[in-house]
Amino acid sequence: MIKGLPELLKKRFNIVIKNQDLLDEAFTQASYVNEHPNQNLKFYERIEFLGDAVMQLVVSEYIYRRYPRLPQGRLTRLRAAMVNEESFASFARECGFDRYIRLGRGEEKAHARERDSLLCDIFESFIGALYLDQGVEPVVAFANQIIFPKLDEGRFDEFFDHKTELQEVAQQNGPVTIEYKLVSEDGPDNDRAFKVAVLIDGTRLGVGEGHSKKHAEQVAAKMALTALKAQK
Amino acid sequence: MIKGLPELLKKRFNIVIKNQDLLDEAFTQASYVNEHPNQNLKFYERIEFLGDAVMQLVVSEYIYRRYPRLPQGRLTRLRAAMVNEESFASFARECGFDRYIRLGRGEEKAHARERDSLLCDIFESFIGALYLDQGVEPVVAFANQIIFPKLDEGRFDEFFDHKTELQEVAQQNGPVTIEYKLVSEDGPDNDRAFKVAVLIDGTRLGVGEGHSKKHAEQVAAKMALTALKAQK
Repeated sequence: MIKGLPELLKKRFNIVIKNQDLLDEAFTQASYVNEHPNQNLKFYERIEFLGDAVMQLVVSEYIYRRYPRLPQGRLTRLRAAMVNEESFASFARECGFDRYIRLGRGEEKAHARERDSLLCDIFESFIGALYLDQGVEPVVAFANQIIFPKLDEGRFDEFFDHKTELQEVAQQNGPVTIEYKLVSEDGPDNDRAFKVAVLIDGTRLGVGEGHSKKHAEQVAAKMALTALKAQK
Repeated sequence: MIKGLPELLKKRFNIVIKNQDLLDEAFTQASYVNEHPNQNLKFYERIEFLGDAVMQLVVSEYIYRRYPRLPQGRLTRLRAAMVNEESFASFARECGFDRYIRLGRGEEKAHARERDSLLCDIFESFIGALYLDQGVEPVVAFANQIIFPKLDEGRFDEFFDHKTELQEVAQQNGPVTIEYKLVSEDGPDNDRAFKVAVLIDGTRLGVGEGHSKKHAEQVAAKMALTALKAQK
């Protein structure tokens, strides 16, 4: 058993893994197994293979249901923004998983514990262990705690084209005119701030600020989308 | 409702989709929607996005459990052999799905109905519709009918390296000697047949035939694997 890990999972996520061997496997790198040849240990790679597929489905289903008008191409791009090495590594760090990985001495010296690729793997193998232990529901609950709130926090907004979505939503019942108007622009050259309003058929539905016109437009479009959805 | 499709599903797979709109959506291409602008139709792409992720997980979990000693790299290769455009298109044809796709006239003329890429999409969107309608269990049951038996039929054997697996399994409890011996070689030059035996520590555990030595060795290794597993 990896000291402290079951307590962390219980305390922070109310998760209790029944099969401790699975959990150990999920947090053990091959380098550690090689250094302890007599302990009959397993390393995380197979569980990670499964966890990756579980996470793909859980995220796919969530965004499929949450964005019922988003076309396939944009669902695919959004999923790629959510499911990738960088974001999974950051989730692993946020969960405090990095401290519990069992590494060989060489890997430890080489700072593998801080490496995105390893942290992403461990996040996936944890998901795989949770799935094998308890099925898909606890994985969805965990994603609801760790991953999906980031959509509302705007974490994936760069990949999420609100302007295109606004166009699609606004024009569902026929053509409309969508205009973006610069409201103000100030600040020093190296820290310029833009304010942009979006108007649909002349009615102002959103306003956004940003360090570029493009970003301010995206923020304004996002606000207008919220307004339009509230009207339905 | 697409004429004949519910009957096919019921008769061949004992599947009854409750939400007929989902089924229609899963079998409708964008070109058909465009030709029928007043029918408020949807095309399959979003459901296919979901079905693809469902299939990835169902196949991943199956091979993860079925081959408990297969390392991650080979699980990944095997999954890629099973989950790809060519194999999914062949499954769609085998299921008789091609006849029920709703296509626009241009696409019909361009023989889209026979195109692997479309057939693969439709296979995935059918899976997505089944999943949305009834959850993952019926998808697993369907895969047990259509996909997984092909593993036993040797359909993915090319991608499945039995010789490497035999080496791993045979050496689990320490080193052994594995030899492949040519037993016979005959037939005309353009239709040569090879027979190869595999011996583990001198004991003959399998024999295989093939049009190349390499293929005969793979068949022999597969037989030896079956023999070794039966001993456990």
